[in-house]
Amino acid sequence: MSQNVIKFTRGVPPTESFPNQALVECTKAVISEFGDVIQQYAPSRGFLPLREIIAAEYGTQPEHVLLGQGSVQLLDLAARLLLKPGDVVFVEAPTYDRTITILRRAGAQVVGFPVNSDGPDPDEIEQRLKSGLRPKLFYLIPDFQNPSGTVLAQEKRHAITALAREYGFWIFEDTPYRKLRYSGSELPALHDILPDQVWCMSSYSKTIAPGLRVGYMIVPEVFASPMARMAEDTYINASYINQAIVFDYIRRGWFASNLVVLKKLYSQRLDAALASLETFFAGKATWTRPEGGFFIGLWLDTESRHRPAQNLLRSAHTAGLELTDGCGFFPDGSGDNFVRLPFCGLTPEEIRQGVERLKQVVSELA
Amino acid sequence: MSQNVIKFTRGVPPTESFPNQALVECTKAVISEFGDVIQQYAPSRGFLPLREIIAAEYGTQPEHVLLGQGSVQLLDLAARLLLKPGDVVFVEAPTYDRTITILRRAGAQVVGFPVNSDGPDPDEIEQRLKSGLRPKLFYLIPDFQNPSGTVLAQEKRHAITALAREYGFWIFEDTPYRKLRYSGSELPALHDILPDQVWCMSSYSKTIAPGLRVGYMIVPEVFASPMARMAEDTYINASYINQAIVFDYIRRGWFASNLVVLKKLYSQRLDAALASLETFFAGKATWTRPEGGFFIGLWLDTESRHRPAQNLLRSAHTAGLELTDGCGFFPDGSGDNFVRLPFCGLTPEEIRQGVERLKQVVSELA
Repeated sequence: MSQNVIKFTRGVPPTESFPNQALVECTKAVISEFGDVIQQYAPSRGFLPLREIIAAEYGTQPEHVLLGQGSVQLLDLAARLLLKPGDVVFVEAPTYDRTITILRRAGAQVVGFPVNSDGPDPDEIEQRLKSGLRPKLFYLIPDFQNPSGTVLAQEKRHAITALAREYGFWIFEDTPYRKLRYSGSELPALHDILPDQVWCMSSYSKTIAPGLRVGYMIVPEVFASPMARMAEDTYINASYINQAIVFDYIRRGWFASNLVVLKKLYSQRLDAALASLETFFAGKATWTRPEGGFFIGLWLDTESRHRPAQNLLRSAHTAGLELTDGCGFFPDGSGDNFVRLPFCGLTPEEIRQGVERLKQVVSELA
Repeated sequence: MSQNVIKFTRGVPPTESFPNQALVECTKAVISEFGDVIQQYAPSRGFLPLREIIAAEYGTQPEHVLLGQGSVQLLDLAARLLLKPGDVVFVEAPTYDRTITILRRAGAQVVGFPVNSDGPDPDEIEQRLKSGLRPKLFYLIPDFQNPSGTVLAQEKRHAITALAREYGFWIFEDTPYRKLRYSGSELPALHDILPDQVWCMSSYSKTIAPGLRVGYMIVPEVFASPMARMAEDTYINASYINQAIVFDYIRRGWFASNLVVLKKLYSQRLDAALASLETFFAGKATWTRPEGGFFIGLWLDTESRHRPAQNLLRSAHTAGLELTDGCGFFPDGSGDNFVRLPFCGLTPEEIRQGVERLKQVVSELA
């Protein structure tokens, strides 16, 4: 089959969303205004003017804001600082595959709770806590979860933070997609509900460009200085040049206006994806209907003797469709029938073609 | 005393060395030429055109070159990948203090060998090896060592790499100052002598600007892919935007011409520092006479019952002089009489004032 390959593999922003001219303008401005500071070695917490903006947004102090080379880097630092081999960590199942890798590398025993349609079930979590399982932390992506697209329901936000308070575990709230809401209303962040116990992280990778590598973490007071020291002892500091560019981009109002453009672009792609799923998968699968973010989670109604995920990936590849192994998102390696559909990086027509190919592949395997 | 504080604390380039206009020009060029690639997520090894330049320089393949957010970050990754708790690591004594921290955090038992005037004594190293001590790696800064300014003698380069071959340990060669030679002739790098066993690292922090956060590591073949995976699982990738800026800066010939300017600037400052030491410390201390780099190592002829380093730091502070604790550079915590003098970030007049203040402080403590 001679055709374009459609990559449902990674949740990356499309090239056409990158602010080329703006980036050059901002570089010019910040080199002129802050050149002496941003070209030098600098304190590991990051460029203060950007930390001030973020601190104001989260109702905290700039000292609690740590800027890094993307938020994943900060997650790794925090895992190294907090976790000892054998420590239990709760996650949603499915969850971000790279997080599972990072937690396990720090020695954690990772325990998953099904995301269901609106986040893990607090009763189930409480049962595990009552049975004596004591997590050091609970890693959650409450808004437009990667990979499922679900939003953690408001009452569950309160229930889970209440459990964190009662049983004394940290919450790691990962929110890279939170600002990309295309419909419905924003829910309170876990950090809003329980600021002292929530490590909140996000980045500008999905809202400006990944290549800048600027992410951040709001760190509880007791760990703010240890995290800054850990960062300094690991990489001295992340690039202030890039952080200053983000600052300038926000200061000029371009972040806000770009967000409007992105939301319009992505919500059309989400609509195309949902329409295609309706066309090709009605009665053959269940899927989430996200109100934002980058992903739709699809659960196929198939059963198989072998590992269907591997078969599916192979057959999809032959059909010109790249898929991510669904099992990687589940800490227990299940997820054979799970497919992550990232919709932001493809045009509506590519999405339709991709979903159609997926349907053909699934039909042939059935 | 109302006076300017003189900071002999950090080996940072002076503000006046930063290429402001060039950085803006390069940003403009690379966003236009490579925008789609460098603003996106990307493979963790780094921007290929820059890796090609570095690979050619080191006579290796681009696959063996890993770009990171400064070379320290890559050292940390390598330490996490290679070292298990209890592993022995050899270093020079004194050595870069941050490296000691990173190695110890990875569980290493750090063993120091005195740098003397031209590097550690191979006979002493061989004795320790023969006695049964088996290091996993030997971390060395052969050119204009931090903090002592020494250069590892040519015959010692051959002797130590021969020991590495015989006893099967890795060499970590850190070369951030290698290109900043103000007099004398370049010696072969350890990587030139034993490419298969030397992990060689450097950065553009001292030759363009630290704020770009672009460093690199030449990784032996067997570890090239594991290191790339380790990087991806830690921070996805370092900023290609910054790496492309470095590439463009080199491609235009600005790196080479800037190096000429830097060498002239720094060699004048080195001369001023050596002249001041002659004026104020002849007969009271011994010091290195570096042919390049950022640092002079000074050993005071003092002895004391207490910890003189602490007294010295305190008295210096009162006299308007900031010093780094010399003990931090020695894995065994010795170094009470050691002072690191960074000379690149200060004007000749500041250097003279600083050395004079140091002499007064030392006299008062004697």
